[in-house]
Amino acid sequence: MDKQKFSEFESFFHPRSVAIVGATRKTDWMWVRCFTHGAFHGRVYPVNPKEKSILGLRCYASLMDIPDEVDYVINAVPANVTPCIIEDCVRKGVKVVSVFTSGFSETGTEAGRKLEEEIVRIARKGSLRIVGPNCMGFHCPESGITFRNDLSMEWGSVGFVSQSGGNAIRCAMVGMDLGIKYSKIVSYGNACDLNESDFIEYLAEDPKTKIITAYLEGTRDGRRLFETLREAAKKKPVIVCKGGRTERGARAVASHTGAVSGERRVWDAMLKQADAVQVKDWVELSNTTLAFLNSPVPKGRRVGIVTISGGSGVANTDTCTEAGLDVHPLSQRTVELLLSKIHRMGTNVKNPVDLAIDYINMGIIELVLDSLMKDENIDAVIFESTFHDMVGPRWMTDIVDEMRSDVIGIGRRQRSLGKPFIVVVPRHLFEDRREKDRRAYLDARIPVYPDIVRAAEALRNLCSQ
Amino acid sequence: MDKQKFSEFESFFHPRSVAIVGATRKTDWMWVRCFTHGAFHGRVYPVNPKEKSILGLRCYASLMDIPDEVDYVINAVPANVTPCIIEDCVRKGVKVVSVFTSGFSETGTEAGRKLEEEIVRIARKGSLRIVGPNCMGFHCPESGITFRNDLSMEWGSVGFVSQSGGNAIRCAMVGMDLGIKYSKIVSYGNACDLNESDFIEYLAEDPKTKIITAYLEGTRDGRRLFETLREAAKKKPVIVCKGGRTERGARAVASHTGAVSGERRVWDAMLKQADAVQVKDWVELSNTTLAFLNSPVPKGRRVGIVTISGGSGVANTDTCTEAGLDVHPLSQRTVELLLSKIHRMGTNVKNPVDLAIDYINMGIIELVLDSLMKDENIDAVIFESTFHDMVGPRWMTDIVDEMRSDVIGIGRRQRSLGKPFIVVVPRHLFEDRREKDRRAYLDARIPVYPDIVRAAEALRNLCSQ
Repeated sequence: MDKQKFSEFESFFHPRSVAIVGATRKTDWMWVRCFTHGAFHGRVYPVNPKEKSILGLRCYASLMDIPDEVDYVINAVPANVTPCIIEDCVRKGVKVVSVFTSGFSETGTEAGRKLEEEIVRIARKGSLRIVGPNCMGFHCPESGITFRNDLSMEWGSVGFVSQSGGNAIRCAMVGMDLGIKYSKIVSYGNACDLNESDFIEYLAEDPKTKIITAYLEGTRDGRRLFETLREAAKKKPVIVCKGGRTERGARAVASHTGAVSGERRVWDAMLKQADAVQVKDWVELSNTTLAFLNSPVPKGRRVGIVTISGGSGVANTDTCTEAGLDVHPLSQRTVELLLSKIHRMGTNVKNPVDLAIDYINMGIIELVLDSLMKDENIDAVIFESTFHDMVGPRWMTDIVDEMRSDVIGIGRRQRSLGKPFIVVVPRHLFEDRREKDRRAYLDARIPVYPDIVRAAEALRNLCSQ
Repeated sequence: MDKQKFSEFESFFHPRSVAIVGATRKTDWMWVRCFTHGAFHGRVYPVNPKEKSILGLRCYASLMDIPDEVDYVINAVPANVTPCIIEDCVRKGVKVVSVFTSGFSETGTEAGRKLEEEIVRIARKGSLRIVGPNCMGFHCPESGITFRNDLSMEWGSVGFVSQSGGNAIRCAMVGMDLGIKYSKIVSYGNACDLNESDFIEYLAEDPKTKIITAYLEGTRDGRRLFETLREAAKKKPVIVCKGGRTERGARAVASHTGAVSGERRVWDAMLKQADAVQVKDWVELSNTTLAFLNSPVPKGRRVGIVTISGGSGVANTDTCTEAGLDVHPLSQRTVELLLSKIHRMGTNVKNPVDLAIDYINMGIIELVLDSLMKDENIDAVIFESTFHDMVGPRWMTDIVDEMRSDVIGIGRRQRSLGKPFIVVVPRHLFEDRREKDRRAYLDARIPVYPDIVRAAEALRNLCSQ
């Protein structure tokens, strides 16, 4: 991406002024409020001939009436009126318009397809660029623009390119829960003009973005997407969810963003060759991002598993193995150390390590986790925290907080060892206590997942880099 | 299973008196309290020469000193002392002893193996049967016996045969969360005498048990297990988790219960031919049980998906397809009905149905869910409830309760239609509100899962019957 194009994209995410065409008082929460809650310091112009003012902002009858330059337009009028607004955008010298409106190629109708072609044709008469249609547009905490008024405006290092508006919102919200902060999010819908490759290319250059994530449903230029992903992946981790992998999924894609989903094996091969990490859904996307943000990339796939129950150790071993990890035997030195210190009834000091009755012995938990983290045969550790199941609802609950602090202390040392330390806090029962645990691990920047299946896949993805 | 053997097993689960050998005051919570919280109406005898009384119960120096018949003994003394206790059990005419103690064949040592053989040899001198060693023994809410003092003693229709004690406890606790109530649970560990086939055979006959679930790590008699499972599965659903499917998992099994795990493809084929439902872990085991308990078995695998976001609809379609379900097109009649009533911008009335902005229109949600449930092309419906994401933290939250009531109303009608209705309430953000939702669905006996992956596999398992 040359400097000029990079500057152009920078300006899309940092507009000095925004106009919302089709703003109404009734739906003020939807768009106008996104720019009035204090994060955006530019100028905001609602446009609607039927309104005088919205949320205290003067409302203009048309774009042309605004006595100022407009950098960014959000188009929220019906599809059939959209071409007129695009005309106005061109005449007004707008840089970029985000067409929220749906009813274009995704309808699968000839009329929808033609309308989409028409708006592109109009835009190209000037230098206007279009995001969408059928999209949410831009979210950039740094500049204060967003597509939903309750998203966090704290900025971070994750960029997200999402063909789906719903997934853009969901990942932003899940990010608020998991402590994933975004540099930029763009929801680009039908991709009639600006597309996935444009945005990935930009995020690859963007120094504010350290991890690129994407939800893609299709592409009109597979060769360019492949080159773009490959170049981007040389610079930073690229995590991609391809929606519409299955035949039925591809049909759903056609109705959703009008994209041609393409063959699964072509996508699988392309993502693999481009060194992108492929994930299957938004849960895995968020979980994997959490791991990349908070864990070092391990040297290998050899995972140490620590549980409180032998049966759970077996199941976690099967799950990790099936996810592509290696539940490798511990080094002789570790085994001997653990045997000399613990090996009470029921405890197992191989890998998986089953703490059995030693789960209530904080010194032992610390010894076990520390030894595994330092073992040269082990590249990463997964600890399944089932204290709550074990201590039950009625007794000994007060020691759980202490145990968690100990575990967090060990987790904090992970970065210097270059080995991921991942915690599983299964859900079910004692939700409030588990939520407290989960929150404490997240605050300590230790990746925590509610399900070993999800933990194993996140670690596997981290290992794939 | 002949009548005499059935009566014998009945008596194991309904002892008139229990002795706990190796009971101590310090660990009174572990075993003695299991029999003193009011559920068990038989007689309880702690045995320990060093204690006078435990929890107000007179403590006997040995089994032989108890002036009463003893039906069930829990052995909690160290492994090397265990043969003497087994001798006493035989002399005392005890029916069954549960050997909690570990340190037998699961250690992988010659000494451990021999000790295990010795206790079997001693037991066979009389008519004593052994559960274990390295196990938790029996849980039967009807008779009031259990292996952990905080488990629910409400009885239900699920039987659980678990080689792992930890998994027995965990599934019992998860059951308390999900509303799964048990008829009987047995944790049988190393299976030196009574084994998986014995218990499955018994549960197949047991009129109190409607669903058989099992966690197995190995078997010493594959032929008998196959016959037993096949006969059981003719009578009731049999859901089996085989621990140690992978090579590493098999190694963990050897350290856990000393079982020989066996080849994966042999197990896969055996479970399939026996018509048992195979699951991969305790989460899938519990989730599948929840579906069997609360949903009719559908006629086919054609699932209707309802979401609030197109991207989510695509991802759910991929996930369901990959799980083995068929996201089949709706009937023309349903499509036309929905088109005539809704089809606003962004809404999609094919399958998956994307409610888009209509998600806040309760009449529409009801129409959509009802139409899909009645559609002859659809055998089951999965509704992804993301109201909370959509309404966000700041506005409109008060309508969510109403929407949930509507959805529950539709769910309640499922039984008459013979079609499962399953809800997904994804976790992340607003945990308290989600927990309220989840609880309400469970109380209404609508299966609810936190993850589409887990929902799809539970429904797939239900369909396999």
